Amino acid sequence: MPKELTTRAEDYAQWYNDLVINADLAENSAVRGCMVIKPYGYAIWEKMQSALDRMFKDTGHANAYFPLFIPKSFFTREASHVEGFAKECAVVTHYRLKNDEKTGEMVVDKTARLEEELIVRPTSETIIWHTYKNWIQSYRDLPILINQWANVVRWEMRTRLFLRTTEFLWQEGHTAHETRAEAMEETLKIINLYADFTENWMGLPVIRGRKTESERFAGALDTYAIEALMQDGKALQCGTSHFLGQNFAKAFDVQFTNKHGKLDWVWATSWGVSTRLMGALIMGHSDDNGLILPPKLAPTQVVIIPIYKGNDELDEISKIAQHLKKKLEEDSVTVKYDDRDTHKPGWKFTEYEMKGVPVRLALGPRDIKNKTIEVVRRDTLEKISMPQENIIEYVKKLLEDIQSNLFKKALVFRNNNIFKTDNYQEFKDILHEKGGFILAHWDGSSETENLIKEETKATIRCIPMDEEQEKGKCIFSGKNSSQRVLFAKAY
Amino acid sequence: MPKELTTRAEDYAQWYNDLVINADLAENSAVRGCMVIKPYGYAIWEKMQSALDRMFKDTGHANAYFPLFIPKSFFTREASHVEGFAKECAVVTHYRLKNDEKTGEMVVDKTARLEEELIVRPTSETIIWHTYKNWIQSYRDLPILINQWANVVRWEMRTRLFLRTTEFLWQEGHTAHETRAEAMEETLKIINLYADFTENWMGLPVIRGRKTESERFAGALDTYAIEALMQDGKALQCGTSHFLGQNFAKAFDVQFTNKHGKLDWVWATSWGVSTRLMGALIMGHSDDNGLILPPKLAPTQVVIIPIYKGNDELDEISKIAQHLKKKLEEDSVTVKYDDRDTHKPGWKFTEYEMKGVPVRLALGPRDIKNKTIEVVRRDTLEKISMPQENIIEYVKKLLEDIQSNLFKKALVFRNNNIFKTDNYQEFKDILHEKGGFILAHWDGSSETENLIKEETKATIRCIPMDEEQEKGKCIFSGKNSSQRVLFAKAY
Repeated sequence: MPKELTTRAEDYAQWYNDLVINADLAENSAVRGCMVIKPYGYAIWEKMQSALDRMFKDTGHANAYFPLFIPKSFFTREASHVEGFAKECAVVTHYRLKNDEKTGEMVVDKTARLEEELIVRPTSETIIWHTYKNWIQSYRDLPILINQWANVVRWEMRTRLFLRTTEFLWQEGHTAHETRAEAMEETLKIINLYADFTENWMGLPVIRGRKTESERFAGALDTYAIEALMQDGKALQCGTSHFLGQNFAKAFDVQFTNKHGKLDWVWATSWGVSTRLMGALIMGHSDDNGLILPPKLAPTQVVIIPIYKGNDELDEISKIAQHLKKKLEEDSVTVKYDDRDTHKPGWKFTEYEMKGVPVRLALGPRDIKNKTIEVVRRDTLEKISMPQENIIEYVKKLLEDIQSNLFKKALVFRNNNIFKTDNYQEFKDILHEKGGFILAHWDGSSETENLIKEETKATIRCIPMDEEQEKGKCIFSGKNSSQRVLFAKAY
Repeated sequence: MPKELTTRAEDYAQWYNDLVINADLAENSAVRGCMVIKPYGYAIWEKMQSALDRMFKDTGHANAYFPLFIPKSFFTREASHVEGFAKECAVVTHYRLKNDEKTGEMVVDKTARLEEELIVRPTSETIIWHTYKNWIQSYRDLPILINQWANVVRWEMRTRLFLRTTEFLWQEGHTAHETRAEAMEETLKIINLYADFTENWMGLPVIRGRKTESERFAGALDTYAIEALMQDGKALQCGTSHFLGQNFAKAFDVQFTNKHGKLDWVWATSWGVSTRLMGALIMGHSDDNGLILPPKLAPTQVVIIPIYKGNDELDEISKIAQHLKKKLEEDSVTVKYDDRDTHKPGWKFTEYEMKGVPVRLALGPRDIKNKTIEVVRRDTLEKISMPQENIIEYVKKLLEDIQSNLFKKALVFRNNNIFKTDNYQEFKDILHEKGGFILAHWDGSSETENLIKEETKATIRCIPMDEEQEKGKCIFSGKNSSQRVLFAKAY
């Protein structure tokens, strides 16, 4: 400190990184690709967890915990899953270290080699379906609606704080059902739940849709996703919900006796969101002064800062500040009164702007005299002086207003950056000049999808669920298409 | 099902294992030594987490998250720490698998060997103090009061569900302070917090005390622990709080400028409780019918079961049951109304006894006629018929009563099983015949401690904090002693 951000216009990627560091959200650790989530960043993640956990429980799900390690052989059981997940992973081969007799250094004890290597879970379908086999005999044992909050590891070569890290935190839902219809209903219920959370808690509008075959989860019959647009015109996938069909039931031999007394394979879904959502939250709203947080996810919603000379002034200000704090807390508003004498008010203003505290109140000697208080909202940085009298109601209203304003602002930005085109050259121009989402026709083939990706780096984010059917010609191949799909460059 | 428990008298260890399985708390997984925590068991753990987390936050701690992996070399920096923790551990040596060209099988890719092995964290002091180095320059950066909820791995040869597993869940606090006094105050604050939690939430009385040198945490100057007594007369350590002195600051070179402008090493504490507490909870209260849960930690506090023939009766009962459920829930009581028609009332009674639901209400046609309701409390299995009229107040009162009764009962048992002796033969007789805690004089040497352990399997659980100073002679060596210490066989 003083903390300075690279501006978004200057270098968006650097701005993001500066912001994560300067707002005390996270930092790189001594272990390549693994991050340390600092208390302030973790407090935001806890708020997210708490809201999501409530939503999962309200829809009948329960939490459980499965092992961190998965035997190597489990991955090979589901053919496409192994290709997607078991390759770049952390492999545990030994279970003991010892002091080397010659050098005295600590080395792997070669005699303590595992018979079968263990993989640190990149996702838990295999170990969970292996477990479900013993839990499911009859339709009476179904549905199973389980969620797990856990850490997972995928060996990433290029990592970025929150967006792509070797270890990350997430939740993974794993459900088991009697019928295809019920499993599909669950898959969609969850993608809608995710959209609800992203829009109403994070303030980020999302487009819900199906993934194309090449973007599907390894082992799924269908993957649904929600896609948000970041300020730099790139898309960020915020959550996925997979219809796994009977693939994992077959791979792990999980059959049940159905209502008609016949044996059938169990139907499955899995779904997850991760600390990547922190990246979406940061990039979705923040500005060149720092983080902007939606009040519902802000660890501190209101900060009160005294402006004073000498202890007499401070005492008078503190009395009012403490009273306001108490009143706001009675209404479940989280308030911090920062009367530290180690920093000047100006420094504190900058600090809380950097940290995205939604509302800042300041009290100085003039405010005491005039019974006023200075109010600054973080989203617009508007500053006004208010009478102290109705300030509690005003602040509560303001927090709601900021929450909905952030969503509206992000929605306007998003809508201004969805383009429709039927022309491939225009498609490329848009991607090159503005970025954003492009709704365009596609012939449905992976080949075309790949060629477009190679040429433009844009991928099909999803086949939107809310988009109307519309006949047209593929922008690339000219072949028939029945619906526009959503293209973008993506994180 | 039907589920049968081995009785405690028959085989205590088997009773425990049967109970964990039959109450649906946890089970062994496909990975040796790692358990699956099932939804019902996890729901209890979540209740524990939530209460502890509140207590940590109320005492100024914040949560954060540090990497799962620790570079091997970190362990060697603190000499005693490495001996205690880095030996039996999960070692990640490679980061990729590949298909073997000849066999087609998936094998470790030898070209993807890590330069330095990574250890799956057995505890996080090393990686955290490596991180703190960058966070601490001045006394203004202190104290740091951080907690982490995480999974850890210690390669155990003999494992038992919850009590000793290769992977387990825990919280680990890691704090950094300016002075020795402040760090010691934190160490004691936390051991008292743990005692508060164990007694007032889990209903288990504990003895707080200092560990002897040989039982100390590897790397600590002092370890404080809370010790509870299980029904089989064995002790179970429920939580530890370590005064680390400046050991880790020195090992990771963490110095700060103090208030006098001088450089000093930072003072540290660490402390943790784990899913082992689940084992203590289970063994502390349960009986031959199954689990007994203190109401504050019971996922379901009250179950209502209808006894009926035909749908008309059920409709009438359901109306009353739903009304009671709603009323109780308004008072924050967790209620389940089990009107499943797949199981008979008797089966349900047994099931909820097994799962330790504190209060069972049953409604039959006679109750409807007489406006009564049957109430069974799980702790004593007492059954009474009550007028429906005041049942809400009665149940709320009953839940409080069960909570305090469980503690009282455990306290009476514990107090009846603390023995004082000054005679080594009697000491051995007590251990052999009854078990329990023994307060006896000890000469303070590790040698004596070890010899007693070898001969009797009893260890010094702690040097009690609340026990008076009292001169005496060591029961083993006859040498002078200034205080009785607490011996027991332990889990």
